[in-house]
Amino acid sequence: MTLDDILEKINKAENIVILTHESPDGDAVGSSLAMQLIIEEIGKNADVIIPEYSRLFNFLPAANEIKKDSEIKKYDLAIGVDCTDLKRLAKYEYFENAKATIQIDHHGSNSMYADLNYVNPVSPACCEVIAGMLKYYEINITKDIGTCLMTGIITDTGGFRHSSITPETFEFTADLIRIGVDVPDIYKRTLRTKTRANFELSKRAMERMEILEDGKVTFTYITKKDEDEVNAEPGDHEGLVEIGRDIEGVEVSIFIRQRENNEDVYKISMRSSSYVNVSDICFIFGGGGHAKAAGALIQGNIEQVKEKVIKEVKKALK
Amino acid sequence: MTLDDILEKINKAENIVILTHESPDGDAVGSSLAMQLIIEEIGKNADVIIPEYSRLFNFLPAANEIKKDSEIKKYDLAIGVDCTDLKRLAKYEYFENAKATIQIDHHGSNSMYADLNYVNPVSPACCEVIAGMLKYYEINITKDIGTCLMTGIITDTGGFRHSSITPETFEFTADLIRIGVDVPDIYKRTLRTKTRANFELSKRAMERMEILEDGKVTFTYITKKDEDEVNAEPGDHEGLVEIGRDIEGVEVSIFIRQRENNEDVYKISMRSSSYVNVSDICFIFGGGGHAKAAGALIQGNIEQVKEKVIKEVKKALK
Repeated sequence: MTLDDILEKINKAENIVILTHESPDGDAVGSSLAMQLIIEEIGKNADVIIPEYSRLFNFLPAANEIKKDSEIKKYDLAIGVDCTDLKRLAKYEYFENAKATIQIDHHGSNSMYADLNYVNPVSPACCEVIAGMLKYYEINITKDIGTCLMTGIITDTGGFRHSSITPETFEFTADLIRIGVDVPDIYKRTLRTKTRANFELSKRAMERMEILEDGKVTFTYITKKDEDEVNAEPGDHEGLVEIGRDIEGVEVSIFIRQRENNEDVYKISMRSSSYVNVSDICFIFGGGGHAKAAGALIQGNIEQVKEKVIKEVKKALK
Repeated sequence: MTLDDILEKINKAENIVILTHESPDGDAVGSSLAMQLIIEEIGKNADVIIPEYSRLFNFLPAANEIKKDSEIKKYDLAIGVDCTDLKRLAKYEYFENAKATIQIDHHGSNSMYADLNYVNPVSPACCEVIAGMLKYYEINITKDIGTCLMTGIITDTGGFRHSSITPETFEFTADLIRIGVDVPDIYKRTLRTKTRANFELSKRAMERMEILEDGKVTFTYITKKDEDEVNAEPGDHEGLVEIGRDIEGVEVSIFIRQRENNEDVYKISMRSSSYVNVSDICFIFGGGGHAKAAGALIQGNIEQVKEKVIKEVKKALK
């Protein structure tokens, strides 16, 4: 059983590093810190390396111990969480150099890139996969571990909203409330709180939003100049892609965001409402994700990127 | 026990009417329709009279049976749901004229205006109060009843988000998923779906939003002219008051909405983030509600109303 092998590897390792994907969301940061705390419960220590993340996650237990980098170049064990591919791991060189590797994930598109792969694609969040591991290991869930896990569940389900949620998700949440995890506080900090910069970017994204294809598609964008003008920090563009999707009748929302100043490269984010598989569309451009939430990088200026993406979206519309 | 007396009154009545508050939200419409379905389970019939509600709630079971008015002037029994005061009930004359009255609510400020009052102020939604009644009566929750109850719980907790939620709320949700209630669908229809008009009104409200008092207070407004220009329907202003509250650092958000064209009367809606009791502030202006969500009607033009409200808000800020 993979879970027994994972526990054995953790027990054998002298030094352990935990990595997650670039532009980490709540599930990525929550899973990383939960794993760190669990490894402590097992009686070991682990470094969490996340070079850049939204300050909204600073409230998480042990967030102040997150390292941007490490002096240990060759870890005994590297653990990747919430990440589909080796090269998407931020600081993946630590993973490549490690003597042994484990990865834990919930994406159907996972490429099984570790020695031991524990992937449950029906789980709504990597944090829920980790919750299952805890149950298997019969490790007590502390309030701190629960807070990390709840953060991933809340952010990856959009606040108990996505079709991926299960009765077990709700029962687990009830259990966490009973041990003192402040679910409304986590919800507010991670999903509802908009930074001032995010509010200003939302305004611009809404102002520019085009509603196309008979109301089925929305398109909007943010440039690096916009981000500079509002003093945006990492994560301040979060949620902008969802504004379009949530308009009545919209099936696909497209949000593009310039990667660097004066550069014609855009990060596209797509969301779908019911039937369009946006992961398939992003795959055409070398990206991927989930059926209803995906992304990719595309070369071109705003008009060119828009044209390329909408051409593919049109084919998928009913 | 009040619950036994309520059941007895229902069993004795030949004709029953269910009423709820004006500008009904999901908890109001959900509670009304759930009560109607429950009364059917008991073996009786009831009319639901709601003169005006958002078409977002048209998906609810039996929504097509909602009446705008009735030909029966004197009902044997009138049941008010989710409403603090007699005069806030839409078509309250049916309540005044009824031979017997019951009301079911979860607002702490309830004025106990019926013959039988069943009020649980710690419940996050009137629908959760009704769920408790079902348990007491040992009535089986059907998928339809569950859909109505879930609608009230989702909308009144802002999607499992408010501090009013309990472990029991989550466990009840898990139970409802298991009997086939489509929680993500209800969530999407009631909380995430924005009508085009709501999107346009949000844009205007955000464009005009003033961030005051060192970032602790936001103020914005919508006129009747705005609503006319975007073809707003009942309910299309929902959620606008929350935009301000969700900005980092904001304690109180104020949203005012003109009642009629060319009339200097505004409906104020207020939300607070943690410590300000906006119900107390709205009470000064003859309104009320919950500590973190309240409303009132105020005379004056936009500037006058703004000044009056902010003067009171300032006193409550730390």
